[in-house]
Amino acid sequence: MNNKDTIHMSIKEFKENGYKVIDWIADYYENIESYPVLSNIKPGELRKNLPKSPPQNGENFNNILSDMNDKIIPGITHWQSPNFFAYFPCNATGPAILGDLLSSGLGVQGMLWASSPACTELESHVLDWLVDMLRLPKKFKSTTSGGGVIQDTASSATLCALIAAREKISNGKINESGFDDSMRVYTSIEAHSSIEKAVKIAGIGSKNLRLIEVDQNFAMDPIKLREAINNDINNGKTPAFVCATIGTTSSTAIDPLKEIGKICDEFGIWLHVDAAMAGSTSICPEYQFINDGIEYADSYCFNPHKFLLTNFDCSCLYISDKEALIKSLTINPEYLKTEVSDLDTVFDYRDWQVPLGRRFRALKLWSVIRYYGISGIQSHIRVHIKAAKILSDLIMQDNRFEIMAPTVLNLVCFRYKASDQFNTLLLNKLNKSGALYLVHTKLNNKYTIRFSIGQTNTTEEHVVNAWKFILKTTEGMEKDGIK
Amino acid sequence: MNNKDTIHMSIKEFKENGYKVIDWIADYYENIESYPVLSNIKPGELRKNLPKSPPQNGENFNNILSDMNDKIIPGITHWQSPNFFAYFPCNATGPAILGDLLSSGLGVQGMLWASSPACTELESHVLDWLVDMLRLPKKFKSTTSGGGVIQDTASSATLCALIAAREKISNGKINESGFDDSMRVYTSIEAHSSIEKAVKIAGIGSKNLRLIEVDQNFAMDPIKLREAINNDINNGKTPAFVCATIGTTSSTAIDPLKEIGKICDEFGIWLHVDAAMAGSTSICPEYQFINDGIEYADSYCFNPHKFLLTNFDCSCLYISDKEALIKSLTINPEYLKTEVSDLDTVFDYRDWQVPLGRRFRALKLWSVIRYYGISGIQSHIRVHIKAAKILSDLIMQDNRFEIMAPTVLNLVCFRYKASDQFNTLLLNKLNKSGALYLVHTKLNNKYTIRFSIGQTNTTEEHVVNAWKFILKTTEGMEKDGIK
Repeated sequence: MNNKDTIHMSIKEFKENGYKVIDWIADYYENIESYPVLSNIKPGELRKNLPKSPPQNGENFNNILSDMNDKIIPGITHWQSPNFFAYFPCNATGPAILGDLLSSGLGVQGMLWASSPACTELESHVLDWLVDMLRLPKKFKSTTSGGGVIQDTASSATLCALIAAREKISNGKINESGFDDSMRVYTSIEAHSSIEKAVKIAGIGSKNLRLIEVDQNFAMDPIKLREAINNDINNGKTPAFVCATIGTTSSTAIDPLKEIGKICDEFGIWLHVDAAMAGSTSICPEYQFINDGIEYADSYCFNPHKFLLTNFDCSCLYISDKEALIKSLTINPEYLKTEVSDLDTVFDYRDWQVPLGRRFRALKLWSVIRYYGISGIQSHIRVHIKAAKILSDLIMQDNRFEIMAPTVLNLVCFRYKASDQFNTLLLNKLNKSGALYLVHTKLNNKYTIRFSIGQTNTTEEHVVNAWKFILKTTEGMEKDGIK
Repeated sequence: MNNKDTIHMSIKEFKENGYKVIDWIADYYENIESYPVLSNIKPGELRKNLPKSPPQNGENFNNILSDMNDKIIPGITHWQSPNFFAYFPCNATGPAILGDLLSSGLGVQGMLWASSPACTELESHVLDWLVDMLRLPKKFKSTTSGGGVIQDTASSATLCALIAAREKISNGKINESGFDDSMRVYTSIEAHSSIEKAVKIAGIGSKNLRLIEVDQNFAMDPIKLREAINNDINNGKTPAFVCATIGTTSSTAIDPLKEIGKICDEFGIWLHVDAAMAGSTSICPEYQFINDGIEYADSYCFNPHKFLLTNFDCSCLYISDKEALIKSLTINPEYLKTEVSDLDTVFDYRDWQVPLGRRFRALKLWSVIRYYGISGIQSHIRVHIKAAKILSDLIMQDNRFEIMAPTVLNLVCFRYKASDQFNTLLLNKLNKSGALYLVHTKLNNKYTIRFSIGQTNTTEEHVVNAWKFILKTTEGMEKDGIK
């Protein structure tokens, strides 16, 4: 981009088009509640409207913007709608969008400290801030033997933690000789599917993953964990890695970290804590209880892109022994050697992740933390947890419905007291209406509707209105004699 | 973001700040040649200027912009400077920055088709366009048994291809039971370090990676490959995966795909082609030769973020048997089941990658292809390959220097005919001057300077001026009696 007359977008043209894109986004948020939350296009419908072949000659950027309205928007499921209650949220906010835009504009690639020192140093700094903000153990700070790094998702963070543990416990042997069927990995039956995915990718094999039973609140049962570990040791296996969850996907169950941590400590097992969704809430003193026992963790991850107002992708991985992670992922070819890396005084973050290259993602996180401040983020989280409590109370007051799990933070799990088919049909009707978007899970083997509250602009009013709409839809189904 | 008075950035405020960020980026490009290309800050210097603690209360967004100038810019190594000749480029362009901004604004997460159909369908569509644009085999199109997907980097693409091959060849056994020391993987000694990293992550172990010798042009020797395969078969091992490179990092060597492909075909080995940097050039008919033999490939990847004018991160992975990839990475918990996924008529891209979540990265690629058109991209690539030829000729005319590898595309490898220490010192002097940024490699065990031409705004003039500066610096060193 420059002022010369070339095939590239000039600086002047960039400014003109840039303002238009900013306006387009502003208009999008202005109108977001008028769109059906869940896109109602049919498979293949969007592609049918696109030209079969790419253009031979360049087009005006305006064409792209007008296609955004006509062709793209109908195929969007609106994650930023305040009526999006599905999955876990992916928070977008003004300061995050603009922080990310600064990163795109700079276009630096921070694989090494030297390849853009600001990218590495701001990341370490902001991740150290977050240790204090979330009241995590000091051993996760970059100024100790530990440190933090931004990953794309918790799936990748878990994979990195698992590889680090695999190598530390095998003394580097598996990286060299391949997996040898020696190790066992543990998580609860309610843990996220990414643990199994990581175990498969790492060549450990799903048969070496032990899924531990849970208690009545869907939290890992530490007695069962101990039994599984003892059993494996008796069979000559090495228990290597436990993944505990703070806030499961199905029901926000909180595994008993302290008991699990003591067991890991006793047997020399690497404890990873997956706090992808719930982790952000410990910024509020009243939710610090979720981290009870966190001092036992060897690694910990949470996703600012879920509940800390930062655009996807941004998952923070902390590790107490950074050398273990670096050793397990380092590769040092000649063309990546720099003067400074040799000094051992800087982090080359490529050794903390699967990919080599990396965006300057710290900018959006820095922008969010500064724009909101600690107190702003706290009040945001409180609004949503309060709304969940209100919804949960409303549901409990209506004896046609049942709450399927304790409402611990911002997720409410419920079902209509009828068949799974009734609830499936109810969910489909709700989603097809376009008024809101919800997804289901199974708890105690029953079809359960998850109502996840976390989109930036969701207010108590949105939640209460959604509940009224659910009631109305249910009553319509009752009248139609559906059971 | 809305018009209400909340703690969040309002739509009005977003527009005001958005324009400011657009202006900031415009100013950045206006002044980019005035900055030292390689940041000259010392380790820790940036962090020293940042507050030790995060703010308790929110700040005005203007503070962030003013810190960008005062605190961040000094720590930036300017990948978008036309005098950046290091590593491989990470192209940023106006249409890519704005396409990415649209993605940040929409804030959708495309893990499943249903979670935002446009995100999946535009990606499949644009990747099919690229099959035609780069003249890749039709078997890579989404309308066949194959398909394409955007990954963050070639490192991740290679890992996914390796996992797919590992599972296909083991009949799903390794995912289930873990790696069993049965398989062997092959690549050349000049291949990218990400292959070894992937082999380690996948639990295969580096001792099962065979690094094949290269010919005088640094391309894999197929005779040596065959020998290694035969040797492994005789030792009871299963040759599983060959990674051939189109354009190595050190010298743009092009492995002989046809010969390698025939061998893979004969032995039932998965052939992956890593064309991260060079792949984009086949959009020009005169560089299609790089793909000679590509019909043998089971998977192929190239990086639009390197030479196709699209901001990092954007690496395209193609696969001829998408079922193999999906089977190797799929996990299907209850909370991710959708009505449409069951129909088998759509792609859920989470099963094509390591992470679960994904950004709407197709927007920036779509924006670039439409803004430039095929002919715009072709002319961009031709400018840089021509500049490399000119530089290469200039070097060859000066008998104090030697060219260390054929100048195949846009990378020139050379050294001053003196000791490695002289060349190391030369490189350091050049980089410390701030006038340009280069990195080194080793070829035939000699310290070699890599001059990589690919930054969007680099012109012939920048390259010629850089060469004059190199000459001047060398002559200064000669005068100082350095040898």
